[in-house]
Amino acid sequence: MDAGALLDILGNENRRRILRLLSRKPCYVTEISEHLGVSPKAVIDHLRKLEEAGLVESRTDDKRRKYFHIAENLRLEVTVAPYAFGMKSAYPASPNLDISTCQHLSLETHELTVEAGTVRQNGGTALEPPPDVEPGEIATLASYLDELDDIERELSLAQRWVQGRISTVLERLADAVDDDSFLDAEILATIAGEERDTETISDEVDVPPSLVEERLQRLADVGVVNRSEAGWGLTDR
Amino acid sequence: MDAGALLDILGNENRRRILRLLSRKPCYVTEISEHLGVSPKAVIDHLRKLEEAGLVESRTDDKRRKYFHIAENLRLEVTVAPYAFGMKSAYPASPNLDISTCQHLSLETHELTVEAGTVRQNGGTALEPPPDVEPGEIATLASYLDELDDIERELSLAQRWVQGRISTVLERLADAVDDDSFLDAEILATIAGEERDTETISDEVDVPPSLVEERLQRLADVGVVNRSEAGWGLTDR
Repeated sequence: MDAGALLDILGNENRRRILRLLSRKPCYVTEISEHLGVSPKAVIDHLRKLEEAGLVESRTDDKRRKYFHIAENLRLEVTVAPYAFGMKSAYPASPNLDISTCQHLSLETHELTVEAGTVRQNGGTALEPPPDVEPGEIATLASYLDELDDIERELSLAQRWVQGRISTVLERLADAVDDDSFLDAEILATIAGEERDTETISDEVDVPPSLVEERLQRLADVGVVNRSEAGWGLTDR
Repeated sequence: MDAGALLDILGNENRRRILRLLSRKPCYVTEISEHLGVSPKAVIDHLRKLEEAGLVESRTDDKRRKYFHIAENLRLEVTVAPYAFGMKSAYPASPNLDISTCQHLSLETHELTVEAGTVRQNGGTALEPPPDVEPGEIATLASYLDELDDIERELSLAQRWVQGRISTVLERLADAVDDDSFLDAEILATIAGEERDTETISDEVDVPPSLVEERLQRLADVGVVNRSEAGWGLTDR
């Protein structure tokens, strides 16, 4: 779902408290109302918004009473920085996603062992449990989970590190080309790898082509970039 | 700042539009008002909230007119999943932070070259530009920025991958111990590496010690965990 719509939903403390509660266990409206000290009417209203956004789903128990649980698995990332305001929401990648195509990143886990030992041997998909719990499987899964929690923390640390670096480099680059909006720096980054045309740059930095053209022309005047048949490129001055 | 407070601030479309605008360039109230089609009074009100939260700062120009810019550099991450609702806000790590202590993660960048070539040679800090722009520096910085952008995308992909894996493993583990709230699975992960006492586990999974004790007792009854002097540990059954 759209990151803006998700922020609208999450920008309410009681809705966040409901999600926190439901992440512990599925609940009836009365349970949520009592736990939060919020009227059932208000809880129903929040649940309706959460359901409409697809974050929450309901089921009925054998006494036909409705109970609610979290339906989605998604993450939201927001970056607020002097040079950028970005937000994106993303669904977790499929377990079969191949991150080995990443050029800069390598992750070491015991994943292959776990996959080979439990999932592939049973011929099922990753989401399908094997017919019987094998001896030692609980210990193996718990260790793997512990390891994944560590990796998540490390990635988060690495993301903060990268964000800090981007900030530093943008500042230095903006300073070098005498630009205080960081736009020139962003533009230069898009043509650092290969020459690009105005339209492509415009798409990437999300500003109109005319403005991109104007900034590049200024940078060309001071000898930082030049234009060839293939597009705009850096002058290695 | 607190992630909840940050979500309250960001849960408003016009405040998000103001931040997006300010990330392009610092603006006067009138500029924001015209660009967004929102009354100056409402803009001032949003800016006040953003200032109180420390996200935005104002300066005055030489005609003593106030203009606003983004003050903070932070990131917010929210995870919504059937087993978890988590949010955290974090400031980017210091450029001197040593991510080489990460056990699972390795990042390959040309960072050291850039650092050696421009920052350390000049003896300044990472935020302080060298006195003169060296030949080729713009190209070097732009390439480095391009690379950092790639790394950011890869880390985000890796986070999604990890979140998907955690989900799968939690489901399998919860299934193995016959628990549909995922709480047992979370508890088991905390004691997978080493034995832990009830208080420590309670802190880590953020539920009361009495509940942790109750769940572990049940898991002990079915032979999944046992208790020793050092605390609770997994039975390798």
